[in-house]
Amino acid sequence: METKKVLLTEDEMPRQWYNILADIKMNPPLGPDGNPVSPEQLAPVFPMNMIEQEVSPERWFDIPEEVLGVYRIWRPSPLIRALELEKALDTPARIYYKYEGVSPPGSHKPNTAVAQAYYNKEFGIQQLVTETGAGQWGSALAFACAQFGLHCKVFMVRVSFDQKPYRKSMMTAWGAECVPSPSPDTKAGRDILEKDPDTPGSLGIAISEAVESAVSDTSGKTRYSLGSVLNHVILHQTIIGLEAKKQFEKIGEYPDVVIGCAGGGSNFAGLAYPFVYDKINGKEVAIHPVEPAACPTLTKAPFAYDHGDTAGYTPLLPMHSLGHTFVPPPIHAGGLRYHGMAPSVSQLVAEGIIEARAVNQLAAFEAGVLAARTEGIIAAPETNHAIAAVVEEARRAKEEGKQKVILFNWSGHGLIDLGSYDKYFSGELQDYPVGEHEFDETIAILEKYPKPQQLKSR
Amino acid sequence: METKKVLLTEDEMPRQWYNILADIKMNPPLGPDGNPVSPEQLAPVFPMNMIEQEVSPERWFDIPEEVLGVYRIWRPSPLIRALELEKALDTPARIYYKYEGVSPPGSHKPNTAVAQAYYNKEFGIQQLVTETGAGQWGSALAFACAQFGLHCKVFMVRVSFDQKPYRKSMMTAWGAECVPSPSPDTKAGRDILEKDPDTPGSLGIAISEAVESAVSDTSGKTRYSLGSVLNHVILHQTIIGLEAKKQFEKIGEYPDVVIGCAGGGSNFAGLAYPFVYDKINGKEVAIHPVEPAACPTLTKAPFAYDHGDTAGYTPLLPMHSLGHTFVPPPIHAGGLRYHGMAPSVSQLVAEGIIEARAVNQLAAFEAGVLAARTEGIIAAPETNHAIAAVVEEARRAKEEGKQKVILFNWSGHGLIDLGSYDKYFSGELQDYPVGEHEFDETIAILEKYPKPQQLKSR
Repeated sequence: METKKVLLTEDEMPRQWYNILADIKMNPPLGPDGNPVSPEQLAPVFPMNMIEQEVSPERWFDIPEEVLGVYRIWRPSPLIRALELEKALDTPARIYYKYEGVSPPGSHKPNTAVAQAYYNKEFGIQQLVTETGAGQWGSALAFACAQFGLHCKVFMVRVSFDQKPYRKSMMTAWGAECVPSPSPDTKAGRDILEKDPDTPGSLGIAISEAVESAVSDTSGKTRYSLGSVLNHVILHQTIIGLEAKKQFEKIGEYPDVVIGCAGGGSNFAGLAYPFVYDKINGKEVAIHPVEPAACPTLTKAPFAYDHGDTAGYTPLLPMHSLGHTFVPPPIHAGGLRYHGMAPSVSQLVAEGIIEARAVNQLAAFEAGVLAARTEGIIAAPETNHAIAAVVEEARRAKEEGKQKVILFNWSGHGLIDLGSYDKYFSGELQDYPVGEHEFDETIAILEKYPKPQQLKSR
Repeated sequence: METKKVLLTEDEMPRQWYNILADIKMNPPLGPDGNPVSPEQLAPVFPMNMIEQEVSPERWFDIPEEVLGVYRIWRPSPLIRALELEKALDTPARIYYKYEGVSPPGSHKPNTAVAQAYYNKEFGIQQLVTETGAGQWGSALAFACAQFGLHCKVFMVRVSFDQKPYRKSMMTAWGAECVPSPSPDTKAGRDILEKDPDTPGSLGIAISEAVESAVSDTSGKTRYSLGSVLNHVILHQTIIGLEAKKQFEKIGEYPDVVIGCAGGGSNFAGLAYPFVYDKINGKEVAIHPVEPAACPTLTKAPFAYDHGDTAGYTPLLPMHSLGHTFVPPPIHAGGLRYHGMAPSVSQLVAEGIIEARAVNQLAAFEAGVLAARTEGIIAAPETNHAIAAVVEEARRAKEEGKQKVILFNWSGHGLIDLGSYDKYFSGELQDYPVGEHEFDETIAILEKYPKPQQLKSR
């Protein structure tokens, strides 16, 4: 029988994270004055040990024993050969996926949540505050904080809070406090509630509430936590790709194509960056972040300076952005509805080291259902976008008669997102065709900011 | 660092299931005429290859390659040391759990669903019909049927169908048909709907519908499938305990205590029977099925002949039973709400080889929340009953200063059952105190049936 799962023992788990900043050139984040942001300016928001990771050019970071101790609950995650999907596609390609749905909250998010909880605890922090849209990130941080005895408060976008009650239940089970945003707990929330008591809320508002809540705690024992986009978040996620490389070594294979869905960029980068390192050092491997066609940051937006949040509170980040006032259509992959993209992912796309793909929602669900009925696992709607790109790649391999090895990140299971599958089956889901000048208005806003330099990393 | 997870490779997965019928004496099931049921009488309901497994005294059954092929999606499942729970309890006991929540539907149920789908397919069957209460079993059979290209129809108790829509969504994603029961699709369903169009349904009605639907398909290509209680179901579940034994051998340990929650008995027996085999052969090990105090089949009911279903369609089975008209209180561990118990589990309790425990609902959730916040995994409400017994055992070990090794079956995760956690936290859950003569009426019904013989297996 052919091998289906490639496992690593706990002893074989990587002991270091990989930092892409050692190998690429990046434009710095800019403050309100147009100058690069200093670590001190970020200190009220993040603990200094995390800020150091955010800006460090060190290639390798030791993973603390305490973090490894928690990772062991579900890591190393399996590398699984999609034998049944291959059969269904009648492709000569060999398809592998790294399955991150084995974590207790069901996605890759705890890889950084656990690290962030640990470093904040080390720094003397007692409470973490964050925002969450669909709830994957909030539940991951709740899980992580329970492991280190930190209090956790999550501002959850009201419309999701009401529509996805199980996400709040998970956070409660892990001892976190989850409130719908906008809330009466912050000035930002109160101001909006006063104007519009029935607002559905937005991620932008929730970020404002979480940041305000963190920086306004005068005890100094509270910090803010973010689940994607930033360098230190992606650093922690590289455990995925580092494990995958070890697993491929075990079976004497190496991927020709590496694929991951990309919203803020962290699950894609977590899998891909150890392979990007190889590529920068001469290895031939195609690497594709996959985004929703309805929110085509990498495929349709300029590489520019923009704010990470809707309200414009964050520093200006050098990234592909549709403009921070862009409101993505209501696709069901909530984790991919983001106007920007991780600066490092953006830089790699800008340099042509990796090449983005865009996938429509219906094609994503069609591929996800095929995967569920062959591989047996029901994927998160976000992951379905990666699967759709894999299916396309496998069909191309068949046309070309090539025995390609395809690797993708199965970033999470869809058991808390089953409502979106219901809508798919009942025909209630739609694609959102993008017109020629669709994003002109929100992109125009970027004109007023400085332009990032065109840098060459290799 | 101490080892947290003990893994087996695919090659180390057991190649045979263990059949307890080789090692214990059992009273036969009886037909309507009071005589032992013949295989031929069961032929319209189950395929003959499954009936042979049901009655065979062979100790070992080879697991077909095709079944191993599907098991590999998630098996071998990890044996995990509950280091953080141990710390929280400050116990000298070493606690291990076999984690079955890694399967795609999230519980142990696919261990038999996959085998049943395979054997039915082998026998030329094209459709399986079953009933489901809370939905764990229905979704497991839907998953298994997708793997072998069988059509699957599930009658789901209406109240659960309405309250737990995600279970239906899972079945749909795997291509199964899930209808609320009672339905207009069967005579049994139509009769009840005519009398009471707003009935919430019951497991008894759903069984009647599924059996009628299976036996009335004149093509001969449809059979019925059951997810617990029967010998062949438990046979398939022994892969859990057989893996656990191999994992303990790897680390040079052996459990002093083996614990599993028990509704119909299959997850308990799946873990425990390979250890029961050792016990019958002289090994010292305490083995405890744990049931809800509100449905105390093993701890308060007689060992008697009774029907497996409410309507009295099935043969009479020799088992501990509260009487087939007993309606368990609405505890949130739906999988433990059953008036009877697997005949083999009942026989072992009757002989004193294993010893049952009963746990109240609130104590179960309290233990489950402790486990979620220490071990990080949110357990199914059923599993919480096992965890409560483990906590008790670990506290006793502390009092006695004993370094006991405790093993239990973490039969499933609770991600689709989070609503019950919400109710626990909001104080809406209650215990159901059992009065002295609580079950007199439903047990009295058993008087009219033959009495099982008192058999001695060792």
